[in-house]
Amino acid sequence: METLLTTNNVWMMICTGLVFIMHLGFGFLEIGLTRQKNTINILFKNIFILTVGLLLYCLVGFNLMYPGEFNGFLGFAGIGLQSPITAEGLDLSYNEGYTYWTDFLFQGMFAATAATIVSGAVAERIKIVPFMIFTVIYVGLVYPIAGSWKWGGGFLDKMGFYDFAGSTLVHSVGGWAAIIAIALLGARIGKFKEDGKPGAIPGHNIPLAMGGVLILWLGWFGFNGGSVLSADPALTSLVLVTTCLAAAAGGVASFLVSTALYKKYDLTMFLNGILGGLVGITAGADLMNPTDAILIGLIAGAIIVFGVALIDKLKLDDPVGAVAVHLICGIWGTLAVGIFGSKAGFTQFFVQLEGAAVYAAFCCSTAFIILYTLKKTVGIRVSKEEELEGLDNFEHGMEAYPEMSTTSTEVKSSLMMNS
Amino acid sequence: METLLTTNNVWMMICTGLVFIMHLGFGFLEIGLTRQKNTINILFKNIFILTVGLLLYCLVGFNLMYPGEFNGFLGFAGIGLQSPITAEGLDLSYNEGYTYWTDFLFQGMFAATAATIVSGAVAERIKIVPFMIFTVIYVGLVYPIAGSWKWGGGFLDKMGFYDFAGSTLVHSVGGWAAIIAIALLGARIGKFKEDGKPGAIPGHNIPLAMGGVLILWLGWFGFNGGSVLSADPALTSLVLVTTCLAAAAGGVASFLVSTALYKKYDLTMFLNGILGGLVGITAGADLMNPTDAILIGLIAGAIIVFGVALIDKLKLDDPVGAVAVHLICGIWGTLAVGIFGSKAGFTQFFVQLEGAAVYAAFCCSTAFIILYTLKKTVGIRVSKEEELEGLDNFEHGMEAYPEMSTTSTEVKSSLMMNS
Amino acid sequence: METLLTTNNVWMMICTGLVFIMHLGFGFLEIGLTRQKNTINILFKNIFILTVGLLLYCLVGFNLMYPGEFNGFLGFAGIGLQSPITAEGLDLSYNEGYTYWTDFLFQGMFAATAATIVSGAVAERIKIVPFMIFTVIYVGLVYPIAGSWKWGGGFLDKMGFYDFAGSTLVHSVGGWAAIIAIALLGARIGKFKEDGKPGAIPGHNIPLAMGGVLILWLGWFGFNGGSVLSADPALTSLVLVTTCLAAAAGGVASFLVSTALYKKYDLTMFLNGILGGLVGITAGADLMNPTDAILIGLIAGAIIVFGVALIDKLKLDDPVGAVAVHLICGIWGTLAVGIFGSKAGFTQFFVQLEGAAVYAAFCCSTAFIILYTLKKTVGIRVSKEEELEGLDNFEHGMEAYPEMSTTSTEVKSSLMMNS
Repeated sequence: METLLTTNNVWMMICTGLVFIMHLGFGFLEIGLTRQKNTINILFKNIFILTVGLLLYCLVGFNLMYPGEFNGFLGFAGIGLQSPITAEGLDLSYNEGYTYWTDFLFQGMFAATAATIVSGAVAERIKIVPFMIFTVIYVGLVYPIAGSWKWGGGFLDKMGFYDFAGSTLVHSVGGWAAIIAIALLGARIGKFKEDGKPGAIPGHNIPLAMGGVLILWLGWFGFNGGSVLSADPALTSLVLVTTCLAAAAGGVASFLVSTALYKKYDLTMFLNGILGGLVGITAGADLMNPTDAILIGLIAGAIIVFGVALIDKLKLDDPVGAVAVHLICGIWGTLAVGIFGSKAGFTQFFVQLEGAAVYAAFCCSTAFIILYTLKKTVGIRVSKEEELEGLDNFEHGMEAYPEMSTTSTEVKSSLMMNS
Repeated sequence: METLLTTNNVWMMICTGLVFIMHLGFGFLEIGLTRQKNTINILFKNIFILTVGLLLYCLVGFNLMYPGEFNGFLGFAGIGLQSPITAEGLDLSYNEGYTYWTDFLFQGMFAATAATIVSGAVAERIKIVPFMIFTVIYVGLVYPIAGSWKWGGGFLDKMGFYDFAGSTLVHSVGGWAAIIAIALLGARIGKFKEDGKPGAIPGHNIPLAMGGVLILWLGWFGFNGGSVLSADPALTSLVLVTTCLAAAAGGVASFLVSTALYKKYDLTMFLNGILGGLVGITAGADLMNPTDAILIGLIAGAIIVFGVALIDKLKLDDPVGAVAVHLICGIWGTLAVGIFGSKAGFTQFFVQLEGAAVYAAFCCSTAFIILYTLKKTVGIRVSKEEELEGLDNFEHGMEAYPEMSTTSTEVKSSLMMNS
Repeated sequence: METLLTTNNVWMMICTGLVFIMHLGFGFLEIGLTRQKNTINILFKNIFILTVGLLLYCLVGFNLMYPGEFNGFLGFAGIGLQSPITAEGLDLSYNEGYTYWTDFLFQGMFAATAATIVSGAVAERIKIVPFMIFTVIYVGLVYPIAGSWKWGGGFLDKMGFYDFAGSTLVHSVGGWAAIIAIALLGARIGKFKEDGKPGAIPGHNIPLAMGGVLILWLGWFGFNGGSVLSADPALTSLVLVTTCLAAAAGGVASFLVSTALYKKYDLTMFLNGILGGLVGITAGADLMNPTDAILIGLIAGAIIVFGVALIDKLKLDDPVGAVAVHLICGIWGTLAVGIFGSKAGFTQFFVQLEGAAVYAAFCCSTAFIILYTLKKTVGIRVSKEEELEGLDNFEHGMEAYPEMSTTSTEVKSSLMMNS
């Protein structure tokens, strides 16, 4: 028995590490798809979210999200973690899949993810202090309260809403805040031309973006695989298979659809299609068979291409495609639980729709209140001067690649002078 | 009993993740050792191979490679995976080391590797569409059929041929296709000068190449460690020790030999020596003791230095050294099973030689038929104009580092104008 | 019973892989924080340390560090590893937490770390051959002998000195050599101005430095988690929690203190604060509760900011902050065992102090003897010409980014000519 707990706990600790390293994946993806003059700023935000997120989750988040018996809407089990003085004091009957501490750390690694999703969408123009304030409130309060409704055993759980690893609870929760934030912030200078057409602002380091996506995919082995909450061989291995097949199918669909539409082999679309497939399978990774997973992924991949175009058409500026990937595919994945797999059915579909709507309402309103308040008080957007010169010099006094960063400024003007 | 299965399956799932991340290692290594104007193209190919490879392996590959009872040459267990509707339907008595789904996913991650090896060798000059067609056929049919002869229990297995984790079945299978491909493609413009001497075309991002090699080494923990097909403590830990010692010895030998020959501390040689050691130990990682492993690695490392020089002398242009690493060291590792370790002996040596020859014949002929047909129909080489300007702009309409990529084009001409 | 060994051994093998990948983390961090003209040289040193370190640990280190019964000061169990001819010959009763081979490999991955710490501190100006000689002696002899005093059951272990995963045995052992080395080497040209004030020499690739830190953090899951020497669920999960909370607290403290002092959001300080927290918790990660861990991390993070300033004030040039991170926080973590957690107390505090002093004396004197001898014979510092042009061209004949490396040389002069 204790051997099985040991095995389960090993798996859960590994999954914790894999979810942790997703923060590197997000960091590389976000800087890769944006300009180098804002690289330090983006990395700083990522590191802030990870560290502060973990500490907040220890302080209040974990006990807000998993309050034990509660009214189903809001509960709180107290400040900080239970702390037996030594490991010997730990109650191993806490759960057969993991220890109390593994539980906290695995969930803590999830917590920071929601804010990270926002980070990519608002990149290159948000002021750092209001972003930090937003992060503290969103990671510290909004995410765990929203999470308690399903994973903490709250009212949505009782209603039968299903979200295995967080298509809604993590990805849409982040995605709704992202879309509110970019609506309040406005587009980056130069993103939309006079005629309203989107201009291309290419990412500055595509190899890192590609590295980020593969690191995220690896991280999803833990994100979904660990959401089994034990090392159950049938379930965990099924989840890895559905996760990987959906990722592959998402990438291939994005590649095919975008090539058909735009007549070029768009690597960024391919990569975002993979992420879309991953987000799409996340709500029901344990319920699908391989064929279901491939279909969910293919649809998610197609959604990405049209989703990115739609966001552009709405004149929303989302530098990394976070809304298409995390919000739209998050909703898709949540609804897919009612369409494919072992829970499929009309009733389930409408419960899924209802759940998604509840999160939409709660996340949009809380994100709006926080960000609108910040906008009207300290302001959320950097000055035009700062945006043009780059946030790295202004807020951080350093450059990402001080010996390489020549093209955009001195060299370009030098080249112009010569020609 | 079920606890042991759980533990074994955890190990196999981790190894699956480690083999997965090798695709990031290959990607970073390949772009690092080539020019930045072709970076997007190389990454695109890598992502294509990974995603399409997984889907193909699900569709046909797994059931071609492991057809169950078959004639030893060609068998097929049907399209797609067995899909019980839920995880509860899974037959846990499938194998004591892993579940059916883990089996598929672990083997699926291997499958894409063979084509990835080719990808590096043909970089910077192959047309993308024929490469994709080649990949589909090679990963979807050639690799699994070849694999069935040994790992699927086919005729080479019955003959006593031994290849623990794929010095031949993965690395030579990729390596033979690589050498055929570069022979049919011809060298990159500028690689060989008028007098026939090889010119240096330096890689554009050595830090990523180095990162790629260490990620590959880590991946080999899973590639070889998972090939035990259970978490057997003695065998898995022995395999990790022999793998790491051979890698270290391979690197050190390459470093020493190349320093002695060329009087400089060549980092690329050091890195390729590590990979040579890894490929070399792969066929017999479970049969060797630490001393054997070090000897196999040392020889592999020396082979790399001479192998790279030989390929150059043959006027074959292999930008990343894939033939020396995967083909030559793959053959060396296969033969080493007859020379070192617990199976060593004349009989075994000749069986190993025979097996290597069978794969040589099959892979060379299939790769030649596919690639020659493509060459004579759609063509396999990009235009001179495209090659000079770079494949990224032509086929993908994007650059890897749009704000940095100055030296080779505008700036250099600007510098020339000034001087 | 054997199932529990299998589980434990799986955990230990994973931790081995995680400690292995720290070498990539160190590599990326070191090159990220230094100039691109010395990138190849730094990576070369890192690869050398890893490969040669493993081979030396196999040859002599493991048997020096764990000699079995010995006099407590110096013992040696013989050259090389025990080598049963096949895995079947292995004695599984060796230890209930891992096999003999896992033991060797896990410890071997640790061994190279000490020299890697030195590598960062001496970057950009040390001659490569004397550095290699130093590494061979320090990794091959000094580290394992020092380690035997505590982890091998030697006199400090008998005295009650406690160092769970190596705040002293790894980090201070490296840190003491680092401070001796930079004192003997002198500062890089341009680091200290005429008036003695430190000039900024910014790192050339901050994204890789950030990636390095997150890879190191992930590696610490194995460094500390594996130091439990089994998969004991209570202890391993506690250790991961204390490790991650200390890392997060370290980062946040460094960020807050440095922002208060210097009025800018310094990403490098944030990153070094994380590392400081990690080094600080390492000696007592298994003894602390979450609150202790956060306090230790917060103090470590503050120490980093003042430590870096102190090193500068002492006119010691430490390009990557290795002394502040590994030496100062290593001492802090060692002493913290006497202040926080289940072993806290005056007696323990003084034993910790005594142990730290023993290592200071031994490491400083051995490092001094080795490096001073090298300085007086072959010399340890590159020529002024080589330092200015960069070690990559001089010693390795290659550049890290041959197509990007323009700013510092040609382009800058071209820009000057134009203006």
